Amino acid sequence: MKAYLAGPDVFLPNAAQNAAAKIKICAAHGLIGKAPLEDVTQISTSPPADMWRAIFRKDIEMMEACDLIIANLTPFRGASADAGTLVELGWFLGRQKPVFGYSNCATLFSERSQAQQAAVPDLIASVAVEDFGLPDNLMVPGAVELGGGLSITLPPDGLTRPFDALDIFEICVAQAARRLGLT
Amino acid sequence: MKAYLAGPDVFLPNAAQNAAAKIKICAAHGLIGKAPLEDVTQISTSPPADMWRAIFRKDIEMMEACDLIIANLTPFRGASADAGTLVELGWFLGRQKPVFGYSNCATLFSERSQAQQAAVPDLIASVAVEDFGLPDNLMVPGAVELGGGLSITLPPDGLTRPFDALDIFEICVAQAARRLGLT
Repeated sequence: MKAYLAGPDVFLPNAAQNAAAKIKICAAHGLIGKAPLEDVTQISTSPPADMWRAIFRKDIEMMEACDLIIANLTPFRGASADAGTLVELGWFLGRQKPVFGYSNCATLFSERSQAQQAAVPDLIASVAVEDFGLPDNLMVPGAVELGGGLSITLPPDGLTRPFDALDIFEICVAQAARRLGLT
Repeated sequence: MKAYLAGPDVFLPNAAQNAAAKIKICAAHGLIGKAPLEDVTQISTSPPADMWRAIFRKDIEMMEACDLIIANLTPFRGASADAGTLVELGWFLGRQKPVFGYSNCATLFSERSQAQQAAVPDLIASVAVEDFGLPDNLMVPGAVELGGGLSITLPPDGLTRPFDALDIFEICVAQAARRLGLT
């Protein structure tokens, strides 16, 4: 089965190395990892007007060709996971393909939202922060739970990892493979 | 046709009034607006452990019952649109139901990302910010363009609106209704 390896990992300085490591971990658990990596060199330079559409279409084609998603839901540019990754997560749920995800961040969404709103006020002047004890907006763990039958994989020791650490990803892949009956 | 009115509008202090106004605008353009509003009173109090799952299931049921999505993609708690809204946007694209969206924010995603990373550093130490001249991560305008055939509706005068202003929403609804052949 082909797993779409969603995440802002494409923006990492060592993106190619990171993708290769993820694909190797997938293989060890009976999954074929597919990383939308070819975008990186295109993204790193200022592109012509239609470049983004070419990248978008290529990502959608890769998603169509994959059987499940394993999403890096570590917060990125705000209190929540990366925007593109969230659209992809929803797409897989809509397509009724299995959805799995992990985060290297051990803090709660409510905590991060409070800090975020204090640092960069929203266009909404003041708004209550919902507190469900969840790692992100409820649609995110909801999509993972409904789509794959598991929770978002989080650091079991409660310690936040660097963004490119892969031990939580590996736990997630192992759980997904078991869930899918591959191991 | 029933339009799912996605957005963090449910967190507004005047959420019920805002939803009623949106539904009225939809009606004026031949659309039945459906707002996931009943959540508000539940969200505003600290809920029991399973409350979030009840809200999630109710939202998914409402999405299943709707024919299209009109998403408020105004940035929320970070450089991008609200996380839950993005999952819903992807879900509608995955289901091949029409996708429309608007933002009250006139600044570019690249600008907001730079400001965001300066104010709240990511777990990624330093990372290039892609500059496509887009209002959000390319998956967001991509989903709207592929799903509904239009761009994200933005302030035509280049002036950012307050979060709960509805003039850009109304332009978006009018364009969606025309695109769907309702007007």
